[in-house]
Amino acid sequence: MMKNISRAQLKNASLEQLNALCEQLREEIFRTVSACGGHLSSNLGAVELTVALHRVFDFPRDKLVFDVGHQCYAHKLLSDRAALFHTLRQEGGISGFPKRGESVYDCYGAGHAGTAISAALGIAKARDLKQEDFSVVALVGDGSFQNGLIFEALNSLAVLKTNILIVLNDNGMSISPTEGATQDILDGLKTGERDARLFEQFGLTYMGGVNGNELGSLLPALEEAKTKLKAGSVLLHVTTRKGLGYPFSENAPTETHGFSPKPAPQSKYPAALGEELIRLAEKDSRVVVVTAAMTDSLGLRPFFERFPDRAFDVGICEEHGCVLAAALAAEGMRPYYAIYSTFLQRAFDEVIHDVCGQNLPVTFCIDHAGITGPDGETHQGVFDLSYLSFIPNLTVGIPKDIGEMRAMLRMGANYGGPFAIRYPLLGSEGPVCPVERGKFEILHSTTSDIIVLAAGERCIKLAEEAAEILRGEAEFTLVNARFLKPLDAELLASRAEKYVVTIEDNVVTGGLGDAVARFYRDSGKFVKCFGYADAFIPHGEAGSLAAKYGLDRDEIVSCLRELHARG
Amino acid sequence: MMKNISRAQLKNASLEQLNALCEQLREEIFRTVSACGGHLSSNLGAVELTVALHRVFDFPRDKLVFDVGHQCYAHKLLSDRAALFHTLRQEGGISGFPKRGESVYDCYGAGHAGTAISAALGIAKARDLKQEDFSVVALVGDGSFQNGLIFEALNSLAVLKTNILIVLNDNGMSISPTEGATQDILDGLKTGERDARLFEQFGLTYMGGVNGNELGSLLPALEEAKTKLKAGSVLLHVTTRKGLGYPFSENAPTETHGFSPKPAPQSKYPAALGEELIRLAEKDSRVVVVTAAMTDSLGLRPFFERFPDRAFDVGICEEHGCVLAAALAAEGMRPYYAIYSTFLQRAFDEVIHDVCGQNLPVTFCIDHAGITGPDGETHQGVFDLSYLSFIPNLTVGIPKDIGEMRAMLRMGANYGGPFAIRYPLLGSEGPVCPVERGKFEILHSTTSDIIVLAAGERCIKLAEEAAEILRGEAEFTLVNARFLKPLDAELLASRAEKYVVTIEDNVVTGGLGDAVARFYRDSGKFVKCFGYADAFIPHGEAGSLAAKYGLDRDEIVSCLRELHARG
Repeated sequence: MMKNISRAQLKNASLEQLNALCEQLREEIFRTVSACGGHLSSNLGAVELTVALHRVFDFPRDKLVFDVGHQCYAHKLLSDRAALFHTLRQEGGISGFPKRGESVYDCYGAGHAGTAISAALGIAKARDLKQEDFSVVALVGDGSFQNGLIFEALNSLAVLKTNILIVLNDNGMSISPTEGATQDILDGLKTGERDARLFEQFGLTYMGGVNGNELGSLLPALEEAKTKLKAGSVLLHVTTRKGLGYPFSENAPTETHGFSPKPAPQSKYPAALGEELIRLAEKDSRVVVVTAAMTDSLGLRPFFERFPDRAFDVGICEEHGCVLAAALAAEGMRPYYAIYSTFLQRAFDEVIHDVCGQNLPVTFCIDHAGITGPDGETHQGVFDLSYLSFIPNLTVGIPKDIGEMRAMLRMGANYGGPFAIRYPLLGSEGPVCPVERGKFEILHSTTSDIIVLAAGERCIKLAEEAAEILRGEAEFTLVNARFLKPLDAELLASRAEKYVVTIEDNVVTGGLGDAVARFYRDSGKFVKCFGYADAFIPHGEAGSLAAKYGLDRDEIVSCLRELHARG
Repeated sequence: MMKNISRAQLKNASLEQLNALCEQLREEIFRTVSACGGHLSSNLGAVELTVALHRVFDFPRDKLVFDVGHQCYAHKLLSDRAALFHTLRQEGGISGFPKRGESVYDCYGAGHAGTAISAALGIAKARDLKQEDFSVVALVGDGSFQNGLIFEALNSLAVLKTNILIVLNDNGMSISPTEGATQDILDGLKTGERDARLFEQFGLTYMGGVNGNELGSLLPALEEAKTKLKAGSVLLHVTTRKGLGYPFSENAPTETHGFSPKPAPQSKYPAALGEELIRLAEKDSRVVVVTAAMTDSLGLRPFFERFPDRAFDVGICEEHGCVLAAALAAEGMRPYYAIYSTFLQRAFDEVIHDVCGQNLPVTFCIDHAGITGPDGETHQGVFDLSYLSFIPNLTVGIPKDIGEMRAMLRMGANYGGPFAIRYPLLGSEGPVCPVERGKFEILHSTTSDIIVLAAGERCIKLAEEAAEILRGEAEFTLVNARFLKPLDAELLASRAEKYVVTIEDNVVTGGLGDAVARFYRDSGKFVKCFGYADAFIPHGEAGSLAAKYGLDRDEIVSCLRELHARG
């Protein structure tokens, strides 16, 4: 375990001592991520840059705002959390992302891309209004620099008339290698083929050519930037190597972007998605794939290799990806837009306005739905059933396993309207039986007065475990409620059970339970809904968090036992 | 009424005849908008440009994609809808926005800003994959050019390897005058002070210096662009005058952006918002205001004049505005973010991730909530109660009139968490009585077995009308359910009525009714919810649409009568 490093130590250290500190940080990060999982290569690449920032600026008086936060580990180690760093991403431990409330050094939280410049501008503007005097630094990766939100912030920088320092940490990668005009511009700046006019047109003083892994060039550059900052906003473009210091990570930065300790279980959904989409594309020339910088994480690399002309990685641009998919569908294609649950929140308006408002056949493949665990609040996919439930024209499927996800993907190519398929981080294989839109599946039939409607693998497993415990004592009929929208009205209307219990891997407000309860309103049936509480769910182990926030097996068992006793 | 103009007529017309056609279109637009309301000045400014596009391109074989659609009237008049144009924005008539399904000439719908380039790219890509051959033109205003989505599309233009023509219609205005770096760049291009490198860096061939109100320069420029388009994507920058042809509109383009026939009622909410925020800001130096290009529409001009340093118009950048507000709040300010209901959908992720996830005291002033009427599907604010209902930490208020909105705005400055206040397009004054968070108001108390919970002015009026009709026959207690979140648990728990009826100006899925029903689940009470059906609600008169889609006074009366009869 590393000791906390005092501000005085950092300020007084020699260059040699600082370099030694960098090695120490790198080792600590590697050791901790090996044990706890987390973002390895982005954090390794940003070690020197973070040390230099802490040396030159006076945090927390000065403010450091992270974009996404995939590079905040060294910052946490340097700001009073070294002794706690071994608890990274563990329940009750420190978060893998910057988080207000965890430390005064984390002035603004993050987890999604593109927010840092807007946030830095807001902080700087508040400073000006309060007539205070400190520096505001936004640390942004090149992957985020493609995001529309960054551009919106740059566009208003001059209008807002305040000064911030943007440090652009350019490692040429987002999660996958960064593609797009912005990256070409950044690359051109590095090679001298392009000039800095782009940034100057946005009212920024550009400083470039800085090796972000070398304190010898970083420290004077940051000092210079700090001085220039008095006269106006500055963009400091530094080049770093993702994964630096660990050859395995340097050579395979995509694979080591998110790193889980062995033998942690790996999700099989992405590989199945890639396979199934290739299968569909081979048969149907209308099938195309869109992703927002998640080619690898979503299992789409094989598709991109097999059908390079029919696969579009638009960078961290969730909104653009969604409109692109809508327009492809408008012209007769069958786009599959693969995305994480919480990132689809970014394209919420486009799901409504472009896809569903025009009733276009886009299939959303929503990965990381439900509680995901150690990434914490910003990555728990527990809102999607709620935010998709009320959108007209949209079909929402919740497959119980990978087999059923494959069946739904096949349905997507033929069904002619918007279709969302949400599936969790982990999953089991299963047979691929055809699925009919809006039809549930009875998994276990009894003559009991209790029927349980469970959606998705986690919830069906919980129900099956409850059935096992209650066998011979309190039987119930178990249904795979695999469509939130439309509900299986025929099945629901035909059931005679007095007690209806729903279980979903989503907040309890606005999801499956509310939909079933709405269906049964005025029916005299008793409806009890299990789902997550009205709270942001922090990092921790997924199963443990699920139990803590609303899906506790013992509580479900007690409820069923009690309903059985009521008779 | 104008006659439909055939394609042959347009192709064979002399320049003189085309100019005469422009005058005819301008008159028709002015006459129709005077009668039906709609977007006047943006449409007047784009007449010559539209005629030139229709002359040079071969629509609907070629595709014309509008951004927002505030300039599509001349296009509608030129594409088989002249005879129907007098039904503009009327129920069953033609839409004020481009709309698939209305005409084959409307290849992609719109209503919100920034989608056109992404959509044009999707259409062009589908064309390439289908090996078809036609041109794709995106018509984008300079206001939209600040939007992040446009930037995301430009960023991926080169990667997507397809050719589109972007016509940038630069009138120097969004709804208010456009501010920001992008506009400075566009202005610089017009004066020759800046070069076109910005666009060239994004892989576009830039063509500028074209007077978009002069067919003599427009026609050859478009022909040239059409030829250049074979070799790569082109940006044609044309300058137009918003409101051209009608001196009143030319001189007051902001006031005539949205134009309603006299003596149509004008909303009083915006003026009250501006007044109240000034009042608050005078007392509390933490109060600041953020808006996304809606300074005038939201009644904020007086605030901007009174407190220029504490008012931020970020352009059509809803996401950036939200993060900016969050960060201002993080540093101790009390930001009010004023925005329309459907445009807040664009910042949905930021409401979750930045504001509520960090529990920051941003007050959202959500105008145009509920059915708004003639603007149609893309502007009906009928989803906000649903998409705000499940966000942890958020308080959601639904004032019953302007007085109560004022009271809630005052609450916002002192209450220390995220607070959304949603109010409709029209409204009445009312007394400003202090409001306690999460407390309903009993408007009319009886000993009846029926209680009606109504939220917002439209719904309370409906309930009052029902009470009037049913007086002496079927009495009920009427409650102003002015908070969706938190509900007034104390009041709800204390009520003895058997029958609970909710009425809300929102889709019935996921809003107030579901929340009340959830509260009463397992209570044995009968809950009946009135709200809008699961459908996109088209344009028409707001009251008539409300009745048609779920808030019909007679149906509410029948329901109450029936419940009374049940006893």
